[in-house]
Amino acid sequence: MFAKEVYVRRRATLLQKMQEAGAQGLILLVGNAEAPAQYKDNCYKWRQDSSWLYFMGLDEPLMAALLDIDAGTETLFADDVEIDDIIWMGPQPSVRSKADAVGVAETKPYGALEQAVAAARAAGRAIHFLPPSRYYNTLKLQQLVPGGQPSEALIKAVISMRLIKEAIEIEAIDEACALGYEMHCVARDAIVPGIIEQDIVGKMEGVALAKGWGVSFPTILTQHGETLHNHIHDKVIEPGKLMVIDAGVESNAHYASDFTRTYPTSGKFTQKQREVYQIVYDCNELAFRMAKPGITYREVHLATARKMLEGLQALGLVRGDLDEMVAKGIAGLFQPHGLGHNMGLDVHDMEDLGENLVGYDPDQQRAKQLGLGSLRMARRLVPGHVITDEPGIYFIPALIEKFKKEGLGGDFVNYAKLESYYDFGGIRIEDDVLITENGARRLGPKRLPASPDEVEAAMQK
Amino acid sequence: MFAKEVYVRRRATLLQKMQEAGAQGLILLVGNAEAPAQYKDNCYKWRQDSSWLYFMGLDEPLMAALLDIDAGTETLFADDVEIDDIIWMGPQPSVRSKADAVGVAETKPYGALEQAVAAARAAGRAIHFLPPSRYYNTLKLQQLVPGGQPSEALIKAVISMRLIKEAIEIEAIDEACALGYEMHCVARDAIVPGIIEQDIVGKMEGVALAKGWGVSFPTILTQHGETLHNHIHDKVIEPGKLMVIDAGVESNAHYASDFTRTYPTSGKFTQKQREVYQIVYDCNELAFRMAKPGITYREVHLATARKMLEGLQALGLVRGDLDEMVAKGIAGLFQPHGLGHNMGLDVHDMEDLGENLVGYDPDQQRAKQLGLGSLRMARRLVPGHVITDEPGIYFIPALIEKFKKEGLGGDFVNYAKLESYYDFGGIRIEDDVLITENGARRLGPKRLPASPDEVEAAMQK
Repeated sequence: MFAKEVYVRRRATLLQKMQEAGAQGLILLVGNAEAPAQYKDNCYKWRQDSSWLYFMGLDEPLMAALLDIDAGTETLFADDVEIDDIIWMGPQPSVRSKADAVGVAETKPYGALEQAVAAARAAGRAIHFLPPSRYYNTLKLQQLVPGGQPSEALIKAVISMRLIKEAIEIEAIDEACALGYEMHCVARDAIVPGIIEQDIVGKMEGVALAKGWGVSFPTILTQHGETLHNHIHDKVIEPGKLMVIDAGVESNAHYASDFTRTYPTSGKFTQKQREVYQIVYDCNELAFRMAKPGITYREVHLATARKMLEGLQALGLVRGDLDEMVAKGIAGLFQPHGLGHNMGLDVHDMEDLGENLVGYDPDQQRAKQLGLGSLRMARRLVPGHVITDEPGIYFIPALIEKFKKEGLGGDFVNYAKLESYYDFGGIRIEDDVLITENGARRLGPKRLPASPDEVEAAMQK
Repeated sequence: MFAKEVYVRRRATLLQKMQEAGAQGLILLVGNAEAPAQYKDNCYKWRQDSSWLYFMGLDEPLMAALLDIDAGTETLFADDVEIDDIIWMGPQPSVRSKADAVGVAETKPYGALEQAVAAARAAGRAIHFLPPSRYYNTLKLQQLVPGGQPSEALIKAVISMRLIKEAIEIEAIDEACALGYEMHCVARDAIVPGIIEQDIVGKMEGVALAKGWGVSFPTILTQHGETLHNHIHDKVIEPGKLMVIDAGVESNAHYASDFTRTYPTSGKFTQKQREVYQIVYDCNELAFRMAKPGITYREVHLATARKMLEGLQALGLVRGDLDEMVAKGIAGLFQPHGLGHNMGLDVHDMEDLGENLVGYDPDQQRAKQLGLGSLRMARRLVPGHVITDEPGIYFIPALIEKFKKEGLGGDFVNYAKLESYYDFGGIRIEDDVLITENGARRLGPKRLPASPDEVEAAMQK
């Protein structure tokens, strides 16, 4: 948790932004409840709502707040523990002292929230709330504000603040990246043909839990990189394959890291693997060089798409005019995802608030094309943006067949040659990047080995 | 997953039990959805609903089933993946082949469920469903059966089946216990004064994730054993303390284990620690010796309460007639929880179906007394019951003060002497036990070191 002043200042800024947007009434912030895995008393690991953490800091279940836009007053709704709870949970600080820690003047029992909201509604006052990120919050909001809709003014105000990371947040993300670095090193060192993938996942996630809050999202670790979201880890590691590891750590301060590396399971790339790897690496480097204030990340995405097609053309997999191929979205056949996303308290930062509001400037339209259409962060870059740089090339037989059958690749795609890549898998290389005043900085104390030579050298150790 | 015949047989038995109970209409089984941690696409680790796993086996989100009690027909509601999903998830087996794997004749899209339930309701047919274990299921059931209540007939039928473990389930629990054994050994070996508790938790849970599905419940690892549910692991390990580790593994087949051991952080018990530890160990042993078909677990709980008071009397902490103290619930001051609970697909098996229906015979009333009132499993034991044996002694200053102030301990408690135990902490020893034809068997291939000498010897290694 940061110092009290941080939360006081953030809430003051939020109220001011709402006033400037002409909003009136109350802001309702709802913290998370525990999420049952099997029954009420067997829950998943506790995780607070990210926007609550940002404005209220308090890292405990069953809390809510009302911030009065008109009067400027703030109330924390939470319950003090009783003697029976002390037996199970130990002595706990009072709600009053928790409110003091984040500079909130008034406290009320959690159960008083319903009446407070109802009274405000009866008086004709607007209740501004964010889209619920969990089923509990959906139920709670249905109960508190029946028929109500999330407030676009509030969503926009929150996004405008959380999108630009403060110095203390950048420090926290650097720390999460240090843990992500450590976790990825453990993973890399554990790659040995013959073992089950799950063995590596356990070792990795053990590091995340020992040093941080856990993983920042379900670990992707697969010898089928062409399956973009693969959460099954029951395969034996085979020699000669490519292993994609896309994983991050959430620090104890709840900031995320998110790195991807692709390793040859035998320690050395084959010639064919190295050729494709080099293209992805070149795209990653290009994006990093281009990322700076003033350019849009959409432009950077498209530049890497062009670079990728140039490399694939040299391999004889595509042919034709590069600019035309970029315009037609041919790169999407090989990289059906975007170049990157915002990162912060969430690994896809604020995705619960709406992908387009978070990742697109008001003057930007999201494309429908495969690949570019999946770009989560397209905005014009400004200092304080924290984004991922994660190009990838995948050979997805079902997608190639679809392109071929439906003529989606025009004459640009060499399907005959592509067939020899059907068992290739996929490659992705991902770093976390801060936009600075003059350019960009890769986050974390050290960069994971990334070039083909660096990767092979790291695997020799 | 077990063989098809297992699920076919279980569902046939369930229908038969419902018919015998005079129930008519449809059984609605609702599988889980993914549980968002931060937003829709960043979820906690997938975990299927346990009753769904028991009757339907299929380990994937967004499935439901209707079992017709009157006609004996069965329908699986689930969606086939589309081309866009294949890009992200890889090729998937069809719903038809999944239904075949568990012997269900008819399949329909997930979205057809609402209409199927509505049509049955319109025809005046009863819809029997279980209590929802997660907020998603609450929302889904509100939508499908507005105003409906869980079916007591269905709850009782399911409990009667899941309570008595089949041979294949016992094998699966033995396997989960083998993993739990391994995890606890890693934890014990990691106890070193000076490190942070979280380091050990990470190492332990890494084992659970490498070899199994993960932990079967949030790990309790604390030098404040007197705080019964302590999930914060930020303390430095101090010499001379007692470390309670209560943790289990869920196997990949989704069965739980649950063990507790208490270790002297310096490797050797002090005289004072050893005295109390010996009492807890004697209670654990007594419960295991008594556990066999015919006796109720309530009787076993009370016998261990008497044993505990006998030991505490020898230490001068209580005084008076043992039977009177047992009747007055004096043991609850030291062990405010029950002796054990059922275990199976859930670590507290079927707790979502109602603690009393699961753990109490129809002729048993749950007590209100501290300790005995928290007993989750009181039933008359029969072969196939899988239960925990977990006595503990804790010195909880807030509770002792409450007893003293409110006179709850009568003249039985030596409060003056108890004060010297205020910084003692707590001790718990827990094994998992199968009730057999003639007695009981501790589950898992090996028992974790349990006696004071065994524990010290294990820590010397």
